[in-house]
Amino acid sequence: MSNEQHTIKTPAHRNVEDERFDEEARDLTRSLPASRKVYIEGSRPDIQVPMREITLTDTPTGGFGLENGEKNPPFYVYDTSGVYTDPSVDIDLTKGLPKLREKWIEERGDTEVLDGLSSNYGQERARDIKTANIRFAHIDKPRRAKAGKNVTQMHYARQGIITPEMEYIAIRETQKQHELTDMRQHAGESFGANTPKIITPEFVRDEVAAGRAIIPNNINHPESEPMIIGRNFLVKINANIGNSALGSSIDEEVSKMTWATRWGADTIMDLSTGKNIHETREWIIRNSPVPIGTVPIYQALEKVDGVAEDLTWEIFRDTLIEQAEQGVDYFTIHAGVLLRYVPLTAKRLTGIVSRGGSIMAQWCLAHHKESFLYTHFEDICEIMKQYDVAFSLGDGLRPGCLQDANDEAQFGELKTLGELTQVAWKHDVQVMIEGPGHVAMNRIKENMDLQLEMCSEAPFYTLGPLTTDIAPGYDHITSAIGAAMIGWFGTAMLCYVTPKEHLGLPNKKDVKDGIITYKIAAHAADLAKGHPGAQARDNALSKARFEFRWDDQFNLALDPDTAREYHDETLPKDAHKSAHFCSMCGPKFCSMKITQNVREYAAGLPTGVEVTPSSGELSDEVHLIKEVDTELVGQVGEASFEEVQKGMEQMSEKYNSEGRQLYKEV
Amino acid sequence: MSNEQHTIKTPAHRNVEDERFDEEARDLTRSLPASRKVYIEGSRPDIQVPMREITLTDTPTGGFGLENGEKNPPFYVYDTSGVYTDPSVDIDLTKGLPKLREKWIEERGDTEVLDGLSSNYGQERARDIKTANIRFAHIDKPRRAKAGKNVTQMHYARQGIITPEMEYIAIRETQKQHELTDMRQHAGESFGANTPKIITPEFVRDEVAAGRAIIPNNINHPESEPMIIGRNFLVKINANIGNSALGSSIDEEVSKMTWATRWGADTIMDLSTGKNIHETREWIIRNSPVPIGTVPIYQALEKVDGVAEDLTWEIFRDTLIEQAEQGVDYFTIHAGVLLRYVPLTAKRLTGIVSRGGSIMAQWCLAHHKESFLYTHFEDICEIMKQYDVAFSLGDGLRPGCLQDANDEAQFGELKTLGELTQVAWKHDVQVMIEGPGHVAMNRIKENMDLQLEMCSEAPFYTLGPLTTDIAPGYDHITSAIGAAMIGWFGTAMLCYVTPKEHLGLPNKKDVKDGIITYKIAAHAADLAKGHPGAQARDNALSKARFEFRWDDQFNLALDPDTAREYHDETLPKDAHKSAHFCSMCGPKFCSMKITQNVREYAAGLPTGVEVTPSSGELSDEVHLIKEVDTELVGQVGEASFEEVQKGMEQMSEKYNSEGRQLYKEV
Repeated sequence: MSNEQHTIKTPAHRNVEDERFDEEARDLTRSLPASRKVYIEGSRPDIQVPMREITLTDTPTGGFGLENGEKNPPFYVYDTSGVYTDPSVDIDLTKGLPKLREKWIEERGDTEVLDGLSSNYGQERARDIKTANIRFAHIDKPRRAKAGKNVTQMHYARQGIITPEMEYIAIRETQKQHELTDMRQHAGESFGANTPKIITPEFVRDEVAAGRAIIPNNINHPESEPMIIGRNFLVKINANIGNSALGSSIDEEVSKMTWATRWGADTIMDLSTGKNIHETREWIIRNSPVPIGTVPIYQALEKVDGVAEDLTWEIFRDTLIEQAEQGVDYFTIHAGVLLRYVPLTAKRLTGIVSRGGSIMAQWCLAHHKESFLYTHFEDICEIMKQYDVAFSLGDGLRPGCLQDANDEAQFGELKTLGELTQVAWKHDVQVMIEGPGHVAMNRIKENMDLQLEMCSEAPFYTLGPLTTDIAPGYDHITSAIGAAMIGWFGTAMLCYVTPKEHLGLPNKKDVKDGIITYKIAAHAADLAKGHPGAQARDNALSKARFEFRWDDQFNLALDPDTAREYHDETLPKDAHKSAHFCSMCGPKFCSMKITQNVREYAAGLPTGVEVTPSSGELSDEVHLIKEVDTELVGQVGEASFEEVQKGMEQMSEKYNSEGRQLYKEV
Repeated sequence: MSNEQHTIKTPAHRNVEDERFDEEARDLTRSLPASRKVYIEGSRPDIQVPMREITLTDTPTGGFGLENGEKNPPFYVYDTSGVYTDPSVDIDLTKGLPKLREKWIEERGDTEVLDGLSSNYGQERARDIKTANIRFAHIDKPRRAKAGKNVTQMHYARQGIITPEMEYIAIRETQKQHELTDMRQHAGESFGANTPKIITPEFVRDEVAAGRAIIPNNINHPESEPMIIGRNFLVKINANIGNSALGSSIDEEVSKMTWATRWGADTIMDLSTGKNIHETREWIIRNSPVPIGTVPIYQALEKVDGVAEDLTWEIFRDTLIEQAEQGVDYFTIHAGVLLRYVPLTAKRLTGIVSRGGSIMAQWCLAHHKESFLYTHFEDICEIMKQYDVAFSLGDGLRPGCLQDANDEAQFGELKTLGELTQVAWKHDVQVMIEGPGHVAMNRIKENMDLQLEMCSEAPFYTLGPLTTDIAPGYDHITSAIGAAMIGWFGTAMLCYVTPKEHLGLPNKKDVKDGIITYKIAAHAADLAKGHPGAQARDNALSKARFEFRWDDQFNLALDPDTAREYHDETLPKDAHKSAHFCSMCGPKFCSMKITQNVREYAAGLPTGVEVTPSSGELSDEVHLIKEVDTELVGQVGEASFEEVQKGMEQMSEKYNSEGRQLYKEV
């Protein structure tokens, strides 16, 4: 299974050599080691929620004290990779993914299929023979809400309707919690987040209705597997891709998208700014199992040859419709960049660093008016609700360095984003709020607290933040520190940063490094929040580590390939993967072996004694006992120090009589 | 200068091909780009404190609004690389580094040079012909305190004596603060740490006398450049090196040490466990500009063929003297692993993971007694004070996974380490305390708070902590998150973790990745604490970024080579390094250019207006004003919204009349 392949049909126009592409295709579709795609059926047969099942080996028998042949049940992990990792599905990039949501959308009877694209630009491109050879071949007619209808998940939620998407998400977020065998987990500090152990469809509906969570899934992107972004759900991550004026082809972007979702990207933003943006986007959406976000102003700017002040509402509006009908699931819209905030950035060290923010600032200065994003905000809502495109209200005035963090321009814009959230909610349009940026650790929480307050708990979606400016080349790390912290404080989705941030365009390795780094930040946040069951994977991997089940340790890791490769650099032989020693210490001495002796020893002590605190020694340390983890205090027995002494002496004799053997034969 | 080379003589026994070694030697001694080694003289000519001077280019003239030809003064950074980056010094690894502290030690007149090594093992090895070919050729006779004398820096400090080492450190920690031109920095949250803007020798003396900081410098390691570890100084990092039973040669370890200090390691721990530990250590110490730490129990264990229960106080004592006379600056000693704590680890998921801790646990169980490290602790202090070796009291019961964090075994041991700290201080022996390990973010602060309380503010020295267990292969990142946070809370030194942690032995790349990642964590902590001047480097780099001074941006980075390399992947041409656009956006559009337009615009507004808040809009938002950064509120003018409107209209006309040019010619 773990090496099973399946064919992958590729775009005719691909500009890469077959061999490289075929190898890449294998990379993109190979099952992860010891992993199998499984689906959990919901209340109806067409609700099939994917998960990755990781098969674990049994605990070894013989040899060491605790090696008892115990069966270790398979472990299930949240899976964003779509059917690319399902060997039973043949991938045809030229046709796109199966449309799993199509039936649900039709059933609701509130949408209609249009005769054709309704944006001028979309029609223009469809007629353009120059792009025919790179165009996606099977473009469906777009779907739109019937006149007067509102097709957003928020609208349904507020009507009390539980959609199949909501049920799908409930199953997905629950992650087979109830089947976990190792439920050990420490209490977290959630800062007001509140996640039930089992996520019900009703809980999902209620969170969406309240605006605390969004389900980005445009009715024109039926290929997407429903997912949710909200403080009371698993912390999500986004990966940015997109070609630029400096190159990168459609193939590369589609492959980056697939690569990113393989490693755990929950959503993808297509930030293309080069040529053929429209065609590139079509290819990405048709083949993407996760929601796609864009920044429409980027494309609008291309349409006016990069002259910001030439932008108009009409051009922007047509761009929104063009992209909504392709199936973009959320739009970053910098409607909070108001004329009065622009001069507040003048004394900054790095001014305005958001592209969208500076485009709008430029427009505001030139026309000396509030931007059309702000003045036409309700018109934008009218478009969004006909396709169920969610807002990602952009932080156009986010700080570009530590010095500019948390300033008036940034917080002034945030307040306006909070006001616009209320307007969007009036239309039942889903909203999340974008956040910084570059912020020192001690000033991160202020961002989260203000966002929750000003934006009425709409989901926060932050870029990092970077906690120092001095490490270009390592900004995936400078930002992961801030991302983990703000995720803990309540951010719902973390936008990844790659090692190339500030320096260049990320390649495939950079994308993977960014993804894994952000999966770490998101999971560290889930753990600190006390998200139910979050620690189960840590426990399973640690148990495998302790029992020298090397392969299980690799297979449970966020990146099994790298873990295995690093291990093999030091201990190449397969035999070593079942070796009872760590590659650090070598065969002669290993602390874990000794720990097993300690366990045998303690196991022989009088019942209840093994975790006795050092009696008189500690009992007078009120402050210590007070500090000690309650779960552990719960296990403390009542034996006296004398009893412990006695038990220990017995064990000492037994231990010595058995020849004080440090290493027993396997 | 930046490519200047100097010769480097190499060990005769080296087991690598000349070519590779010579290339490596160049790697190890090449000056960093645009950097020059400078020395600041203290109150006497033989106090010469090294710093790295980074030359910056001028702000460009013409073209953009704020490009005014401004001179950007050179930037000075703390430099741990020793004379390896000083082209005026020829390196001879076979002779070792210059002994810069020798005269200071002699002057004090409280030490004597012995006739020879006083440890049995040291003498044995000196006589061993089998190791003659790999032995360091110029071993000096060891130095020891005269009978009844105490030669620790803490002892001097408590006598009110300011040593040259203390003055050296005061200059080094001050980092030319008073010469900084950009003093902009946000207030930090120090959690009780208290660092003056200018560090005086008296402040250093007082911190050492109080035990809040240590100066690890054995009188037998006069080559080391004095440095300090304490909560009220810059956060430091340690890099572990050392060969193991699985290989790695002396050359490789010496080169790893040099490589680690080149990138910023403040101390090095030699954790060698393989053969020739003694000889390897000699080579490392003689050539190390930073303090060297060891875990003597590792070597003691080798002496009893890995059978922990065969360890004796006599063997351990001889090992301490052997290593003290070689010049080891601090010893990790796991004296807190008491018999009564061992059973507390039995119910753990991963038991005891510290090698030293498990060795001692094994010994305790076998003998059913408290360990000789505990029962002979005062004897150990007597040895330490004759050479000025500092204690690093080991956390032998640190958690090996999140589940085991903050438990009774860990905190019980911590309490004992606090008691031992008092004993060591009674002898004026310097002490730092080792800490975990694996801890979820929400449980990190408890570790710091308890350590400060139980150990009377002795410096804390932590490994990470790792904030999740699920990313083997990326544990430099899982741990950097925890390291940055605990550094912020008050940890004085962070022990690095490499990507190979749990998997294998780090190679040169892993060492560098670990170092840079930990420099990031330490600096992020300094920033969050509000360490005086910490933000200056961030500001200088951000200013260079904003002004498109690409080379300055690279040269100010923690890793200039990688930053430049990543940039060149996208924009290879040198021309691009002076290009007025970022590699992300390309030549057509750049947000920073627009920001410059905004500045020109704001600059033309009526005085005091440019940073006016949006008057009525914000003034009723008491909570916002309340939250806003005080530095910035300080700049807010009083102009009314009408005045702003008027000013803006004028500017709008001016802007348009000038042809609304987005890009002016350079």
